[in-house]
Amino acid sequence: MNIGFIGFGEVGYEMSQGFLQDGIKEIIAYDPMYDNDFVKERAKAAGVKLVANPVEVLQPEVEIVIVAVPAHHAKNAWESIHQNLTDDILCVDVSTASATVKAEIDKKLLENKGMFVDAALMGPLSVHKHKVPIIASGGGVDRFEELMTPYNMNIEKVSNIPGDATNIKFTRSIYMKGIAALLSEVLELAHELNIADRVVSSISKTMDEKPFAEIINRLITGTAIHSGRRVIELDNVIELLEEHNIAPIMTMATKEKHIAITNHGLRSKFNDKTPDDWKLVIEEMNKKVSEEIGKV
Amino acid sequence: MNIGFIGFGEVGYEMSQGFLQDGIKEIIAYDPMYDNDFVKERAKAAGVKLVANPVEVLQPEVEIVIVAVPAHHAKNAWESIHQNLTDDILCVDVSTASATVKAEIDKKLLENKGMFVDAALMGPLSVHKHKVPIIASGGGVDRFEELMTPYNMNIEKVSNIPGDATNIKFTRSIYMKGIAALLSEVLELAHELNIADRVVSSISKTMDEKPFAEIINRLITGTAIHSGRRVIELDNVIELLEEHNIAPIMTMATKEKHIAITNHGLRSKFNDKTPDDWKLVIEEMNKKVSEEIGKV
Repeated sequence: MNIGFIGFGEVGYEMSQGFLQDGIKEIIAYDPMYDNDFVKERAKAAGVKLVANPVEVLQPEVEIVIVAVPAHHAKNAWESIHQNLTDDILCVDVSTASATVKAEIDKKLLENKGMFVDAALMGPLSVHKHKVPIIASGGGVDRFEELMTPYNMNIEKVSNIPGDATNIKFTRSIYMKGIAALLSEVLELAHELNIADRVVSSISKTMDEKPFAEIINRLITGTAIHSGRRVIELDNVIELLEEHNIAPIMTMATKEKHIAITNHGLRSKFNDKTPDDWKLVIEEMNKKVSEEIGKV
Repeated sequence: MNIGFIGFGEVGYEMSQGFLQDGIKEIIAYDPMYDNDFVKERAKAAGVKLVANPVEVLQPEVEIVIVAVPAHHAKNAWESIHQNLTDDILCVDVSTASATVKAEIDKKLLENKGMFVDAALMGPLSVHKHKVPIIASGGGVDRFEELMTPYNMNIEKVSNIPGDATNIKFTRSIYMKGIAALLSEVLELAHELNIADRVVSSISKTMDEKPFAEIINRLITGTAIHSGRRVIELDNVIELLEEHNIAPIMTMATKEKHIAITNHGLRSKFNDKTPDDWKLVIEEMNKKVSEEIGKV
């Protein structure tokens, strides 16, 4: 099997090396900078054939074309080839374009023919190359798994809806980057106070005690009832951070968020009793958002 | 043994009930509202003797006096009795006054005689009563454990420094409230996008994979090197939140925090290589803070 790449940057380069090692016959790539020496050298090093026009990528034995361009070029890339695509070419978009853009590409350019895959790369390519963990959604996702698992790609199907994979990646990233930022603020303070080891062990004990899904449930349902009191408690810790010259960036936002949660009036909606399931809380909060939008 | 309380609110009421059940002979309490019907009824219900003057709490068989007042009254409370304290009375402050205030109470009012305990309550009193998990520090902490463990108190000694227990509680609370706020923002978005279960299972998988102490290490050391790139990625997710009418409160702060981390220039300090230990990162960040303060 042959593979085509639109875009031959970091992603194309790293994946191609892995593909060719694991049995892909030929890789043809187009990059707007195809004439650039750096690009040419990388293509040569990886064993990839560079072409001067995106349509040239679609050679007879190419069964899969992968768009691997910066997010704002994704639509453009698909536009440049969509009229030349045949129904048997799998169209995989590994860019970080938004779910909305990806859904639009599938609908408007690829006519929902079931050949599109929204693929979100979930790890560092330099480490994993083509074996990088991927979550994928869209009409072509089953075919993608079928075709590429034999070449050692690590694909997890999410759904048949293009955009779902990207949305999961983005939403997950809010959490991962947020907790990193939060822990940084916590440890900066703890280090200043000479209690870092104690704080790490205290937090770890709580976090390691139960499966994270249960922790989520306890935190969200508890916050629904106690957010009001916590707003006041947060003033104490904001003061403590400031005393030690640590900007309370995450902690101020935490306070603001607890105020916003309190304003949903969840405590009275749940009759002062902690609800059983975090979904009840989030549904209630999102309902309110929708109603407010409705009112505008 | 008898116990004295200065302040007979929620804390005094709940703990007293438990103490008397578990063998404490008598509890004498002073509250500024000692003449209030509600306070009188609660004292009666708990079996506590109310007195009209703080000094009256210090009766001969009282071996331990517990200050359980709102944070801003803590110093005041100790001031009202400190001249009447004898060296054999253990002085326990369970208020949420700051570490600085508690250290000052020990130094200025109790003359560092080793009888002071900074006790931080770590759970809900209504559930645990006197058995509530407590972390404690200060000169009197060993005596506190010795005296009260037989009465089923759940005391964890932290250090001999008054204030350490309160600082650990406060710092820990930044994390616990912060992660609740962050998860709320994440789940509001995930729910709107119909991917909540997927997101929970994806995050849970990552969080349950390793002990939390290792996760901390990976997050802090990785952020030191990659914070700059993540600032850009965060713009994508802020856009996604806004598209779905969810205020990006925690996510904006996450971006701001990543900018602040990037400004520390950690990437070049660690020569583009992820450091081994989160402590190296936090030390570097705090060093910079101290230097900057030094420059002012």
